[in-house]
Amino acid sequence: MKFTVTILGSGAATPTLNRFPTSQFINCNERNILIDCGEGSQIQMRKFRIKFQRINLILISHLHGDHYFGLAGLLSSFVLLGRTSKLQIICPKGLKNIILSQIEIGNAKIPFEIEWQEIELKERELLFEDKVLEVYGFPMNHRIQTHGFEIREKKKARNFIPEKIEELKISVKEIGAIKNGEPLIREGKVVPQEVYSKDSKRPLSYSFSADNRIKESQIDYFKGTDLLYHEATFLHEDRDRAKTTFHSTAKEVGQIASKAEIKNIILGHFSARYHDTETHKAECQESIENVFCAEDGNTFEISENGVELIG
Amino acid sequence: MKFTVTILGSGAATPTLNRFPTSQFINCNERNILIDCGEGSQIQMRKFRIKFQRINLILISHLHGDHYFGLAGLLSSFVLLGRTSKLQIICPKGLKNIILSQIEIGNAKIPFEIEWQEIELKERELLFEDKVLEVYGFPMNHRIQTHGFEIREKKKARNFIPEKIEELKISVKEIGAIKNGEPLIREGKVVPQEVYSKDSKRPLSYSFSADNRIKESQIDYFKGTDLLYHEATFLHEDRDRAKTTFHSTAKEVGQIASKAEIKNIILGHFSARYHDTETHKAECQESIENVFCAEDGNTFEISENGVELIG
Repeated sequence: MKFTVTILGSGAATPTLNRFPTSQFINCNERNILIDCGEGSQIQMRKFRIKFQRINLILISHLHGDHYFGLAGLLSSFVLLGRTSKLQIICPKGLKNIILSQIEIGNAKIPFEIEWQEIELKERELLFEDKVLEVYGFPMNHRIQTHGFEIREKKKARNFIPEKIEELKISVKEIGAIKNGEPLIREGKVVPQEVYSKDSKRPLSYSFSADNRIKESQIDYFKGTDLLYHEATFLHEDRDRAKTTFHSTAKEVGQIASKAEIKNIILGHFSARYHDTETHKAECQESIENVFCAEDGNTFEISENGVELIG
Repeated sequence: MKFTVTILGSGAATPTLNRFPTSQFINCNERNILIDCGEGSQIQMRKFRIKFQRINLILISHLHGDHYFGLAGLLSSFVLLGRTSKLQIICPKGLKNIILSQIEIGNAKIPFEIEWQEIELKERELLFEDKVLEVYGFPMNHRIQTHGFEIREKKKARNFIPEKIEELKISVKEIGAIKNGEPLIREGKVVPQEVYSKDSKRPLSYSFSADNRIKESQIDYFKGTDLLYHEATFLHEDRDRAKTTFHSTAKEVGQIASKAEIKNIILGHFSARYHDTETHKAECQESIENVFCAEDGNTFEISENGVELIG
C-alpha cells in the first residue's frame, strides 16, 4: 500500500519552460486522484508515465485558469481513449457548464458517467469517502472562492494476533461479530481486545492548499496532516504583492504551518519572477525543518516514517 | 523580409509526448499570426523562443478542442504579461462566448481590445488585410464547420530604376503621381513603365487546411499557393477510418494537391496510432515531390526559390 503525491505543475499563473501550472496526481492505496488540472496536465502525465485513465476523482480548487484549463482536454482524451468508467469531479460552482459547453460545441459525446459535485464551502466538510479514504474540503482565502483539500486514509480494523485466535479458540463467526463491534466473551467475561488484536497503523493524511493568503484562523484546517502542500507564490520581500493578490510568502506559510504543528511541507506555485527556490526554502525553514520546494515531476511518499522525495 | 511557418503542434486530437495538438506560428514580413491554438501552444512558443506577445491575429479553424483549448490560457498569459495592444481573433461562431465565460468566471478583466470576427463561410472570402498581406478563408469538409486559411503577401509597387529617374529627370512629385497610377509623360507621350521601373517580386502564399476530408471540389482553394499544410491524420490502409471521421489519408492529400498543382506540401495532424511518418511521406510523394512531414518545432521558410526547412 502506497501514498504518493506527484507534482505535475509547480508554477503560478504564467507557465514557464520548467514549471507547468498547478496539477498533482495522488495515489492513495491505489485510489488515483487528480488535484487541479492546469493547461498541459495530460501532457505532464504522459511525460511522467502516469496511467491517467485510472483517475476516478478530480478535485478542482478554484476557477482561475491555471488550475483548470487542462480539464476539457483531459476529458476529451478520456473520450478518445475509450473510457467507460465513472468519473467524479468536485469543483466550485460554474465549472460543469464551462466544461460541458466546450465538449458540446465540438459536437462530442461523453460516453462515461461524470458525477459533478459543485461546492461552495463555508467550513470544513467531508466531500467523498470510500472504503480506504476520505476527502475533506475547506475554504481558502483567495480572490475568488477557493477550496483546500485533505485526503486522509481511513482507520483500518484492528489486526487479529494468529496465536491468540488459536489459543482462545475464536471461531470464524466470532471474528465476524468482533469486526461488527461485539465483544469476545470467555468464561462469562469480556476479553479486552488488546489481548487478541493489535491496533492497525495510524491513518496517513495529505493536505493541499492553493491558492491561499494563509491566516491564523486556518490553523485547524491544517492540523494533523502528515504532509501539507501550500502555495508560496512570493518571497517575503514581495509581501505587499502577496497581500494584494491574496497569495502567501514562504515565510508566512512557515509561520502559520508551524503553529499547526506541520512537520513536512511542500512549497509550490512559484511566481515566474524567481529563478530558483533556495530563498523560499530558507524562509520557510525558519519555522519548519522539513521543507521541500516542488519541481515538476517530483514524487513524494508519505509513510509512518515521514515524507520522502522518491522521484 | 521573411515568410516562415513554425509548427507548434503536429499531432491529432490526443497529444503525445512528441506531438502537441495543432498550432502554428506564422511570421509574414513581421506580421505575426497564430493559426489554431491547441492545449499547450503557449508552452511550445516558450520552448521554441517565439515572442508570442507580438501575435496580433489569431485564426481558429474549428471548435474541436485540439484546435483551441490553449486559447484561454494564452489570453490569460497576455493579461498577466501586461499586454495593451489590440488582438484580432477570427474563428467559428460560438468561440467568443466560450472563451469570455472562462475569463469572467475567474473574475479577470482583459485590459486590451479583442476584435472577434466569428465566421461561417460557404465559399472563399477575404477575411483580413493590411498593407503587406491578405488572409482568405474557405470552408473545409469536416464533422463540424471548419475553415482553411490562405495567408498571401500583397503585391508590392514596382521598383524605380535609379539611373532612369536621373536620365528621365523624374521629379519627386511625378514619382508620387506614378505610385498613384498616373502615367509618366515625356515629349507628349506616355513612357511605358518598364522603361523606368521593375516589377516587384511575386507575392508568396501559405495555405493551411486542417481538419479536412480532402475532395476534388476544393482544388480551387489550394491552387496558386507556394506551400500547403494539409492534415494527413491517416495512412491509406486506414482510409475507412479517415472517411467516417472526415479526415484524409496521406495518399488522398497527394492526389488532390497535385491536381491543384501544389509544389510544396507539409503533412501533419498525425494520429497517435503511427510511430513514424515515413509511410505518410511515401504515400504523398507518389503524387508530389517536395513533401515534408511536420515535427513540433520545425520552421519552414517560403521564398521565391521554394520552401526550405530552416529549423
